[in-house]
Order: sequence, then structure tokens, then C-alpha cells
Amino acid sequence: MAESRHLSDTTRVEAFSDGVFAIAITLLVLEIRVPTPDATEHGHTLLAALRGLWPSYLGYVLSFVTIGIMWANHHSIFHYIRRADRYFVLINVTFLLCISFLPFPTALLAEYLPEPGGRTLAVAVYSATLVVIALAYNALWWYAVAGDRLLAADADRDAVRTISRRYAAGPISYGISFGLAFVNVWASLAVHGLLAALYLLPERTSPGRPSRE
Amino acid sequence: MAESRHLSDTTRVEAFSDGVFAIAITLLVLEIRVPTPDATEHGHTLLAALRGLWPSYLGYVLSFVTIGIMWANHHSIFHYIRRADRYFVLINVTFLLCISFLPFPTALLAEYLPEPGGRTLAVAVYSATLVVIALAYNALWWYAVAGDRLLAADADRDAVRTISRRYAAGPISYGISFGLAFVNVWASLAVHGLLAALYLLPERTSPGRPSRE
Amino acid sequence: MAESRHLSDTTRVEAFSDGVFAIAITLLVLEIRVPTPDATEHGHTLLAALRGLWPSYLGYVLSFVTIGIMWANHHSIFHYIRRADRYFVLINVTFLLCISFLPFPTALLAEYLPEPGGRTLAVAVYSATLVVIALAYNALWWYAVAGDRLLAADADRDAVRTISRRYAAGPISYGISFGLAFVNVWASLAVHGLLAALYLLPERTSPGRPSRE
Amino acid sequence: MAESRHLSDTTRVEAFSDGVFAIAITLLVLEIRVPTPDATEHGHTLLAALRGLWPSYLGYVLSFVTIGIMWANHHSIFHYIRRADRYFVLINVTFLLCISFLPFPTALLAEYLPEPGGRTLAVAVYSATLVVIALAYNALWWYAVAGDRLLAADADRDAVRTISRRYAAGPISYGISFGLAFVNVWASLAVHGLLAALYLLPERTSPGRPSRE
Repeated sequence: MAESRHLSDTTRVEAFSDGVFAIAITLLVLEIRVPTPDATEHGHTLLAALRGLWPSYLGYVLSFVTIGIMWANHHSIFHYIRRADRYFVLINVTFLLCISFLPFPTALLAEYLPEPGGRTLAVAVYSATLVVIALAYNALWWYAVAGDRLLAADADRDAVRTISRRYAAGPISYGISFGLAFVNVWASLAVHGLLAALYLLPERTSPGRPSRE
Repeated sequence: MAESRHLSDTTRVEAFSDGVFAIAITLLVLEIRVPTPDATEHGHTLLAALRGLWPSYLGYVLSFVTIGIMWANHHSIFHYIRRADRYFVLINVTFLLCISFLPFPTALLAEYLPEPGGRTLAVAVYSATLVVIALAYNALWWYAVAGDRLLAADADRDAVRTISRRYAAGPISYGISFGLAFVNVWASLAVHGLLAALYLLPERTSPGRPSRE
Repeated sequence: MAESRHLSDTTRVEAFSDGVFAIAITLLVLEIRVPTPDATEHGHTLLAALRGLWPSYLGYVLSFVTIGIMWANHHSIFHYIRRADRYFVLINVTFLLCISFLPFPTALLAEYLPEPGGRTLAVAVYSATLVVIALAYNALWWYAVAGDRLLAADADRDAVRTISRRYAAGPISYGISFGLAFVNVWASLAVHGLLAALYLLPERTSPGRPSRE
Repeated sequence: MAESRHLSDTTRVEAFSDGVFAIAITLLVLEIRVPTPDATEHGHTLLAALRGLWPSYLGYVLSFVTIGIMWANHHSIFHYIRRADRYFVLINVTFLLCISFLPFPTALLAEYLPEPGGRTLAVAVYSATLVVIALAYNALWWYAVAGDRLLAADADRDAVRTISRRYAAGPISYGISFGLAFVNVWASLAVHGLLAALYLLPERTSPGRPSRE
């Protein structure tokens, strides 16, 4: 009985989080502005205008994939976490606050990437946001696993340690991309692309397959 | 059978409410406007422009945390409320109407906080909205618990009374912040921050732990 | 087994519909525009500007309550409908297309209600949209109940007939408000308010109480 | 136990996808802009302005129905797919990235359909987006059914083959509408309408009726 209530808790935390993830990811498209007909005279010029939106497309894809990976990870930790307490819910809200903020630095990136004078700051703000997101995500995970606080009784401890190490690399990697922004913005963005690609590699304990089958 | 239908009712009320909470909380970021490149010449100026957006960041964090706490509370009362009738659903829709409205006073706050001539009214409108939200939330709770109308049969009556007292303090506290807006807007905003912090304190019956384990 | 799959179908139709309802209802607030500081010099002028937004508040409340009632009704028919087939899903998508469109006539109403030259058309478009929504809703209900196509085996036939009569009154009532728009816009809007109030009256078979307990 | 975890996986993938579908479909209305009162002097002119928005209405209906059908299809494949692994989740995120992008080409279509110089490109971009969406959708389905990777044990193999054939026609059909855009934009749009109508035809294995009852 008590167990079923706890599970129900996690269910609603997951549902609310899914909602925020789904909305934040879908709002990204609103930042891609259709060129006005006044600014374009014929098809050729519209083509040029659409090409000129490449920083918006780049920002859209980068942030979409990043939020998508964050969602997939958030999804997968609930294989191990079966209960939610007040503080877990609050750390989760803080994490979602950071995720929901991402459309703003994405729009900033899209607007200032073509501007030599603003692009360093835009990429730095974008990377800094991801450092904070990664820290909040680690806080969520650490709070749940510390002293097995909210872990499922049958959670594979080795898998948990592997995930902890993996997640700890997040803030460090995004920190590097933050530092690189002041050296070369394209190198910094390349790190973001690389991090997304790395997350796609299989891990020892895949989220789709429970660890102790 | 009847019981399972009632539970299913509450489930869909919770799901719909979660949707509205999740969307209202995520729409807040749309109010933070990216500075236009025309208005900024180089990185330094962009930095100044981004700093100048502090009222938007403040409004975003304040409203996000407030909606987050409202969601967590709304979430936790369904440990006690297991059935929904027509009027409960309608009071809940009214409550959601107020929650959904919050992005408007938040944008008003962000726009007028730096304006000496408008900030009193902006903070007063923001506080007044929260008074109404808190009243609607109390109406929802009171309707459900009055005469045990929609309470779970096994709900802890002491816990219910504690929650009732706690919630009753909401409209009064926000009323104080409303009054303070006409004396000193920063004191009024400080009350909002303080109220958020107070909600984070543990209560006797935490939502994560059923009261009669 | 087959039965549980059917139920699961309805669950996802309900979940998707809830999502669309929740988003359409929450997007309404985006149509209320914060007055620009340039247009207002001091607190008094801001107060006047905020008062001048009354058509936006009116549109927000009217459309929010209308969508809220539509959602509550949509919610309650799934006490009787337990299965979904392809055509039911498609009629439901058409119904949602109309619901999602409502923010546009609401914004039109808010913009043109103070304009003597445009208000008749704005109120007529608003009412016409609700006629179409009510027709789509009736189509959804009629498709499900005709020949007991998708009704639950234990559905109370008397309750179903009562609901059918009630729903049939929707397009007619909104049709009257459409006609009234060309005579007097305020009388037309009063009908909208009256219809919302009428929906709040108890019906013989309340959605919270199954009909054959 | 393992089975129930797999089912739960699919549940959250479906819930997240439903969220993205619901938001993308509801955001479409934001692209229909209310004409400003300054541009219209009296009711007659507003009527003309509202008539002039026909490309926005067309784009809204076309994209709404398209996303609605995509959702219904996505919904129906989970009758056959009962498990989700890491790569399935990632292909699904990519598919959702394309779905979420649709409001942009829809707005482009609405803006440039009346412009002789831009309409070819606008319709081509719109069709190209649907080619990519259809390819991503096929990738999702093929990944799941190849070698019965994620199929339910009791899935009807004949039904699966029928669906595979049906889905494979999607990218080809949208490819034809892409090619037609350069010949005649109205013929290209007619193909879109026709494809929507074709999807409404009954298939041998309807989603509402499991294949082996």
C-alpha cells in the first residue's frame, strides 16, 4: 500500500517533468522567425533569407537534441528511483527551471552567432546554462542515490556507480565548452555536438534492459 | 468498481492540471526577450543588455518557483482527495485559470520594475494575482475536506487539519505583500521570496510519506 | 485482454485531448499584451493602460471557462465511452482542431471589441467558432452512441439520452448568440456568459457519480 | 516483472510523444495573426482582412490534420511495439524534432503562398519537411520490426507487413508533392490534401481492433 503510493508519486513527478520537457522542446521552433515578404523580392532572395537563418536551425537542432537526451536520461533514472520525497520534488523543479530556460540562450545563440561582437558572449551564456543544467541533474541523482535514499531495493549497485561516474562528467565537459567559448566559439559548439554524440554510445546498463534480468 | 472510477476521475483531473501547470511554467521563458543586435554594437554592450534583463530573470525565477510549489502542493493534496465531483472539477478549472494568468503579471513585473512610475502598480498586480490564486487553492481544498466530502476514507484527520491551517496562511501572507507594495516594492518582493523559502521547510506530514504508515 | 486494449486506446485519446485542451487554454494568456513603458509615463497612466485591456481579460475568462467546460464534458463522456475506433479518433482530432483554433477568435474579440466598426464581425466570428466546436462535439458523441457503437456495456441508456438532448442544445444556443451579434454584440456576449452559467447547473447524472451505483 | 518494466518504458515514450504532438499541433494557431485595427477602418475592411488570411487558415488545417494523422499512426503502432530500447527512444526523439519543426514551414507557407515570387520555395520547403518526417517515421517503424526487435510476441505478422508497405508509400508520395511544387504549387498542395484523405480510408487491420481477436 505504502509502496504503491510512493510509485504513484514518482509517476506524477515523471508526468509533470515530461510535460515541461515536451513543452520546452516544442517552444524552440517559435524562435525561428519567418523572413518578412517586404525584405525579399523574389524566390532567389527568399532562398538567401532562409539560408541566412542557419544559426536558428543550428540552435534548434542542438537544443532539441540536448533536451531530448536530458529527457531520455531523466526517463532512465526512474528505473532505479522508485520513490519521491519533498526535497527530490523540489530539486526536480529546480532542474526543470533550468531546462525551461534553455529557449532563451538558444534564441540568443541564433541571434548573435553571425555577429562577431556578440557571438563569444552568446556561446558562453549557452554553455553556462548547460553547466547549470548538468549540475542540477547531478544534484537530483546524487540526492536520490546517497545512502540509497530513494533507490529501488533491487537496484543494481554497480550500474548506479557507473551512472554516477557518467553523469559527473557532464558539468566538467560543459565547463570545458564554456572555457572554449572565449578561445573559439566554433570549437565550443563542436564540444556540444560531440557530447550529444557521446551520449548516444551504448552504456553498460542500457535503460531499455533492466540490469538484473 | 465505483471506487476505481472515482480514482480514474482524480487521475484525469490531476493529468489535466499537470498539463496546465507544466505549460504555464514553461511559457514564462517567452517573456524574456533577446536584445536586438541593432541595439548592441559589441560584446560589452550585449553584456550590459543581458544584465539589464535582470527584472525578467527575477520574474522568471519567482514565478517558476511559485508555480512549482503550487504544483507540489496540488500534487500532495491528492494523497487525501480520492474522488472528484462536478464542482470540485469546476473549482479546479477556476484555480487553473488563475495559475495560467500568472505569465501576464510576471511580464508586467519584468517590464515595470525598473520604472519608478510603474513599479508600485506592477508589484501590486503581481501580489494581487497571488492572493487570488491562494484563495482559489483554499476553496479547492476546503470544498474537498468540508464534511469529508471527497476525502479518502483512511485520510489522517490531524494531517488534514494541519494542512488546512497552513493553506489558510497563504492568502493572508500574499495580502501582506500586496499591502507592502504601496509602501516599498522591494519589501513586498522580499515577502514573496520568504514565502517560497517557508514552503520549503518540512511539514509534519510530508507529501512523500503517507501519514499513517 | 481485448477489453484492456480498448480501454488503453481510450486512455491515449483522453491523454492527447487533455494535452491539447491544456495547451489551448494556457496559450490564451499570450494574447494579453503588457503595455509598453513608452506609452505610459507614470503609475496613473499604467493603471489606465491596464484598465484599457478589459477586452483581453474578458476574452481570456470567457474562452478559458468555455474550454474548461468543454474539457469537463469531454472528460465526463468517457464514463460512457470505453472504446475508440479509427473514425472516433479522427472526429476527435477534428474537434480538437476547432478547440485549438479558439485563441485566434479570442484575440480578434480582444482587439476589436472596443472598435465600433469591427466589433460586430469579431463577436460573430467568435460565436461562429463556438457553433462549429459544438457541432464537432455533438458529432463525436453521436458517432459513439449511435447503435451503441462505442458505449460501455453497462452504460445507463436514460443518462445517455439526457446527455444527447443537452448537447444538442449547444449548437442551437451558440447559433442564437451568432445571430444576436448582428443585432447587439453585448447581448450576444451575455448569451455566452449565460451558457457557461447553465453548464454549471447540476444534471441528472453527474459525471462524478456513475449512474448505476 | 521485466515485461512490466518494458511496458512502462513504452508508456513514457508514448506520453512524451503525445505531449510533443499536442503542443506542436496547438502552437499552429499562434501563426495566425490578428489584423491590426490601424490597418482596418470599418467592419467591411476587417472582413477583407480576415479573408486575406486564407493562407494561414489553409496552413493551419493542413498541418493540423497532418500532425493529427501522424499522431493517430504513432498511436496505432504501439499495438505492435511493446518495448523501447535506447535507439528506439533516440529515433523517436529525431522524429519528434521533425514534427516540432512543422510550425515553421507552415508559417512560411502562410506568408508566401500569396507571393508569386516565393510560393514555389515555400511549398517545396513544406513538402521537403514532410518527406523528412515520413522518413523518420519509417525509420522508427523499421527499427522496431526488423528481426522482430521490439514487436509484441503476439503481433500479427501479416498486419505488420501491410503497415510496412503502407508507411513506405509516405516518403514517395511526399516526394512527388515536393517535385510538383516546382511545376505547380496548387497541384503540390492538392497531393497533400489527397494524402490526408487516403489516410482516412480503413486499413485491413484497424488500430481500434486488435488483429487476432
